Amino acid sequence: MATPLTDSERRKQISVRGIAGLGDVAEIKKSFNRHLHFTLVKDRNVATPRDYYFALAHTVRDHLVGRWIRTQQYYYEKDPKRIHYLSLEFYMGRTLQNTMINLGLQNACDEAIYQLGLDLEELEDIEEDAGLGNGGLGRLAACFLDSMASLGLAAYGYGIRYEFGIFNQKISNGWQVEEADDWLRYGNPWEKARPEYMLPVHFYGRVEHTAQGAKWLDTQIVLAMPYDTPVPGYKNNTVNTMRLWSAKAPNDFNLQEFNVGDYIQAVLDRNLAENISRVLYPNDNFFEGKELRLKQEYFVVAATLQDIIRRFKSSKFGCRDPVRTSFETFPEKVAIQLNDTHPALAIPELMRILLDVEKLAWEKAWDVTVQTCAYTNHTVLPEALERWSVHMFEKLLPRHLEIIYEINRRHLDRISAMYPGDGDRLRRMSLIEEGDPKRINMAHLCVVGSHAVNGVARIHSEIVKNTVFKDFYDIEPEKFQNKTNGITPRRWLLLCNPGLADVIAEKIGEEFLTDLYQLKKLLNFIDDDTFIRDLAKVKQVRFCEIDENLVCRFSS
Amino acid sequence: MATPLTDSERRKQISVRGIAGLGDVAEIKKSFNRHLHFTLVKDRNVATPRDYYFALAHTVRDHLVGRWIRTQQYYYEKDPKRIHYLSLEFYMGRTLQNTMINLGLQNACDEAIYQLGLDLEELEDIEEDAGLGNGGLGRLAACFLDSMASLGLAAYGYGIRYEFGIFNQKISNGWQVEEADDWLRYGNPWEKARPEYMLPVHFYGRVEHTAQGAKWLDTQIVLAMPYDTPVPGYKNNTVNTMRLWSAKAPNDFNLQEFNVGDYIQAVLDRNLAENISRVLYPNDNFFEGKELRLKQEYFVVAATLQDIIRRFKSSKFGCRDPVRTSFETFPEKVAIQLNDTHPALAIPELMRILLDVEKLAWEKAWDVTVQTCAYTNHTVLPEALERWSVHMFEKLLPRHLEIIYEINRRHLDRISAMYPGDGDRLRRMSLIEEGDPKRINMAHLCVVGSHAVNGVARIHSEIVKNTVFKDFYDIEPEKFQNKTNGITPRRWLLLCNPGLADVIAEKIGEEFLTDLYQLKKLLNFIDDDTFIRDLAKVKQVRFCEIDENLVCRFSS
Repeated sequence: MATPLTDSERRKQISVRGIAGLGDVAEIKKSFNRHLHFTLVKDRNVATPRDYYFALAHTVRDHLVGRWIRTQQYYYEKDPKRIHYLSLEFYMGRTLQNTMINLGLQNACDEAIYQLGLDLEELEDIEEDAGLGNGGLGRLAACFLDSMASLGLAAYGYGIRYEFGIFNQKISNGWQVEEADDWLRYGNPWEKARPEYMLPVHFYGRVEHTAQGAKWLDTQIVLAMPYDTPVPGYKNNTVNTMRLWSAKAPNDFNLQEFNVGDYIQAVLDRNLAENISRVLYPNDNFFEGKELRLKQEYFVVAATLQDIIRRFKSSKFGCRDPVRTSFETFPEKVAIQLNDTHPALAIPELMRILLDVEKLAWEKAWDVTVQTCAYTNHTVLPEALERWSVHMFEKLLPRHLEIIYEINRRHLDRISAMYPGDGDRLRRMSLIEEGDPKRINMAHLCVVGSHAVNGVARIHSEIVKNTVFKDFYDIEPEKFQNKTNGITPRRWLLLCNPGLADVIAEKIGEEFLTDLYQLKKLLNFIDDDTFIRDLAKVKQVRFCEIDENLVCRFSS
Repeated sequence: MATPLTDSERRKQISVRGIAGLGDVAEIKKSFNRHLHFTLVKDRNVATPRDYYFALAHTVRDHLVGRWIRTQQYYYEKDPKRIHYLSLEFYMGRTLQNTMINLGLQNACDEAIYQLGLDLEELEDIEEDAGLGNGGLGRLAACFLDSMASLGLAAYGYGIRYEFGIFNQKISNGWQVEEADDWLRYGNPWEKARPEYMLPVHFYGRVEHTAQGAKWLDTQIVLAMPYDTPVPGYKNNTVNTMRLWSAKAPNDFNLQEFNVGDYIQAVLDRNLAENISRVLYPNDNFFEGKELRLKQEYFVVAATLQDIIRRFKSSKFGCRDPVRTSFETFPEKVAIQLNDTHPALAIPELMRILLDVEKLAWEKAWDVTVQTCAYTNHTVLPEALERWSVHMFEKLLPRHLEIIYEINRRHLDRISAMYPGDGDRLRRMSLIEEGDPKRINMAHLCVVGSHAVNGVARIHSEIVKNTVFKDFYDIEPEKFQNKTNGITPRRWLLLCNPGLADVIAEKIGEEFLTDLYQLKKLLNFIDDDTFIRDLAKVKQVRFCEIDENLVCRFSS
């Protein structure tokens, strides 16, 4: 069996990750020492390995800042169509190594840390996993963000900054015991809080219909505070933004109505509002129907749509173009991708804003909404499909329920006209499932309210068309597409297994890092014994080293 | 009436605050711009005044870091006696301007910010007040920290990092309405979290008496996470530490016993533990007797004593000196000052550690405890005195109740011996007040468990001796002292009214800034008409400018 490479042996290799320039190494050492002193307030007598990790993370982060600011300025100047990827999960994992690779800093950092007498891999291991996802759905969202940044697309990830992500698994007497994943305990050097962009989100209340249109009144407000995380593209100087919302109670929360005179209790009750962003629901394949989860779904949607519309209105060529009326151009400038039905409320929320705030007519508003939204289906399991109780909606989001009823009325009118007398079809295709309790089928809402629907694998997209959404496919086949769930070869090949990446790059160059189809070229070496032996060797070495954590998490 | 000075006029003055050096100004501008870019991730197109405040705060903070690290290293090398000021309140107020003044940076910063086209006073106004106190008691604690740093004493402030300080007052229909003081919302550039020094604090449970001594078992654990704030002395390069504790639930909190299988609920229940450091109790002159407050009091005491003992044990000449047994030297190296009875539990907690953990005999432990602790009394109002119900203690701190009973037994034995047959005196002097409910008199605990007791004004200290603690004064008059509650002339004169400070300095020099008795020299100018006119002018000018917030807060 091959002996695993030592760290310094690996450092000597000329690898696809590049060679460290001397100037870069000196600069990184200087910056590392500056951060240890000024940011962490430590000297090397008392610094812990975690302090060293943070000093390095801040050093690498500094390299992102200029690119991040300039990318966003460029988007403001050029005003391209912007993609907004809405997801209740972004399973980002660790950031340090991925950032070093994407900025081409890996070898310079490796060398700098080595010269400082420290070990890069040891420091990398200290980083907490951003486990803000359960599995495939969340990792797909993370891979899409990476991919869009690497393609230079003006893309934004929008989700929730859960204080607690997917639980850590402990085994006790043969049983799984969950442990809270307090991933933010030591601070997160990769996020920047943006309290200046905080937005209000409304819940509960009642609807009043006036001559000026519908008004949603007497609501309870929770504030959404954004935290921005940079999403660097692979060696292209693009840095996009993932914006995650954290729930904050307003300062007068519960002090007026409920707890007059009981200041302490009112402050403690703020937890009730702030619980919205407290914890990621485990299980993405079983629908529980809890109110807190519905609050999470509306919270991310309501904050995000305000943000999107604010950006659209302040864009240079979007709304301000005097020739065209404002929201005409919305779908040309704004795409909203719904990662499963969790952010499905974006459809009635966009309708509500266009109708009640922007005063568009229903038909126009609906046209803008459908042209803007697209839906990715992840599962066809009945127990995983979201079917929210009408009763809960009535209480929490009364205006949205009205809008969904109206969407459904028009939708069923259209189906009746196409299939007169086919009552069973109406029942099957309705957004509202009769029964006790009466429920809203969120997948149907997504299909009706989107201009595109996709599955995440060819076979899955076929099932979508032929079974779950067959009735919908029959009337609008052009909506249905497939997007096979790809992965980024940077994180899952170059980062996970640099040795394998080197062996491949030696044969076919580095293009496979941005174009995975290039791997087909390896077919030419199928009879190359040296290559096959090198591959086998690399596999064996890597197996001994592979991060056990990762194995655990992905096999669980 | 005199026209108020404009900002640039004031800048031209040669004032006691010093003249800006050109090099310093250039350095500060560079550092400010670096922080705006790298720390705040903004450029001047989109930066808000709050971003500018933070950029300046980080710039000034950088000047503290080296001095802070070196001061703490110096204490470690020299191992002087350390003073630990325990207080449930530290009414620190704002930090930026005070730091600039103490480091002699005020004029350089003023000039740098002016050259950047910004206004220093406007930025200063953005800082949130660290309103972690109700009034005199908390401000006294803050002034003591400033004074000890300015005297170069090895002092530590220990308290709670309340997420919400003293409420903001709103007037609605003529009535006061409180609003939560969310002072940390925008981040606090003056604190450094120190998760690596997190410590466990125990609550509830039961006591088992074994051959090896008492054991406190089956407790619930809450973690205490320290946040350190630098406390700079006035122009002496000393930077001391105020360490405030924040409550964190352990990661298995409620996941084992209460919520097996309900991961979401267990995570939400963490709030119950973390509520301990959520909010400062308003009213320091009325005792409510709420369990949450008792938890706060034990929380700060338990975390702080662990920290003190850890530091004592790792000190170079304290515990490691082989000639003397370890805790003999404790009172020579450690002073614990109790700011009112709120941290009174330090007495039974230190006893518990010395008895149950360090295995000292009672007499030795008691001697160490009394020699270490001292008590500042703040009020003689009966409704403000802390008298905790024995029942609550029994549940929350069962071992401490036992220890208090034993302290009381020995205390009453001693009184009986001195005053045989004086049952009324025993009743008056007991730590335990019989009645329904039975209560613990925390002030009596403090007097008995301390070697020094002081009031905060001459007349107050006389009342302490002659009325509230008369029985105690009769037997141990040497314990009773006075420390008139002084203020720092830096914050309350130089910072609040620089014009007045200048007029005074012109006559008597600058020594009054560290020695307020110097102001007596002004008596020589009682007939100096020019001086009196200058004084009157400065008073008039300042009155027009005075911060209305401050007036509001201190008159409320």
